[in-house]
Amino acid sequence: METTTGLPFDAFARACPSRETLEHVTGRWGSLTVGALRDGSCRFNELRRKVDGVSEKMLSQTLQALERDGIVRRDAQPVNPPRVDYELTPLGIEVADRLLGLIHFLEGSMPQVLSARESYDAARGGR
Amino acid sequence: METTTGLPFDAFARACPSRETLEHVTGRWGSLTVGALRDGSCRFNELRRKVDGVSEKMLSQTLQALERDGIVRRDAQPVNPPRVDYELTPLGIEVADRLLGLIHFLEGSMPQVLSARESYDAARGGR
Repeated sequence: METTTGLPFDAFARACPSRETLEHVTGRWGSLTVGALRDGSCRFNELRRKVDGVSEKMLSQTLQALERDGIVRRDAQPVNPPRVDYELTPLGIEVADRLLGLIHFLEGSMPQVLSARESYDAARGGR
Repeated sequence: METTTGLPFDAFARACPSRETLEHVTGRWGSLTVGALRDGSCRFNELRRKVDGVSEKMLSQTLQALERDGIVRRDAQPVNPPRVDYELTPLGIEVADRLLGLIHFLEGSMPQVLSARESYDAARGGR
C-alpha cells in the first residue's frame, strides 16, 4: 500500500491495516494494557487489577488482538492449576514506551486541561 | 489526586480525569484528528477528508471533546457564509507530536505486525 508520501502504510487511509493496529494499541483499553505490561510479565488477574475498571471480557479481547499483532506474548505454562503470563514483545516495548510518553505527558498536563474545561463550561453557562 | 508514585494524576486509576483525556486523544477518531491537525489550521470538511472514514457526527463530537480539554481551538469567523477553522493549541501540538511518533512507528512496523498475524492465524488453523 503505497501512499503519495512514499510511506508504505498510512493510518489516515481507512483501508490501511495500520489503522487497525493503531486502534488496538490506543483503543479504550489497549493503551492502558500495553502501558501496564511495561513493568514486566504479568498474570491475567494481576493485569486486571493494574488496568483499573476493565472487565474480564474486555481485557481478554484486548490481549488477544495485541497478541495477534505481535505486541503481546502469551505464555501458558503446563502446570496445575494452569498459569498464563502475558508480556510485551520487543515490538510491544517500543510501542509501550511511546504510549507511556503520551500518558505521562497528559497526566502532567492535567492542571492545564482542567482549567481549559472550566473556561469552556463557563463560556457555555456552566455545566 | 495523589498516587503512591507521587504523580498527581494517574490514568491507570479509573476515577482519574486524565483517563478521560487519554480517551479523547487516543479514541477511535481522536488520534487521527489530532494527528491531521498537526499540519496546520483546517476547516471542518477538509479535516473530514484527511481523517478518511469519519462521519460528520463523530468528527464533530471528537472536536468538541478536544476543544473542551484545551487541545484544539475552534475559530469561528463572523463572515457569510460562516467559516470555522480548527487548530491545535500549544498543548495540542505537544500531544500531536507524541501521537504522530506512535503512528509513524506503527506504520513502519506493519511488515512485522502482518507477519505476526499470519503466524497467529496459521497456528489456529487459518482464519
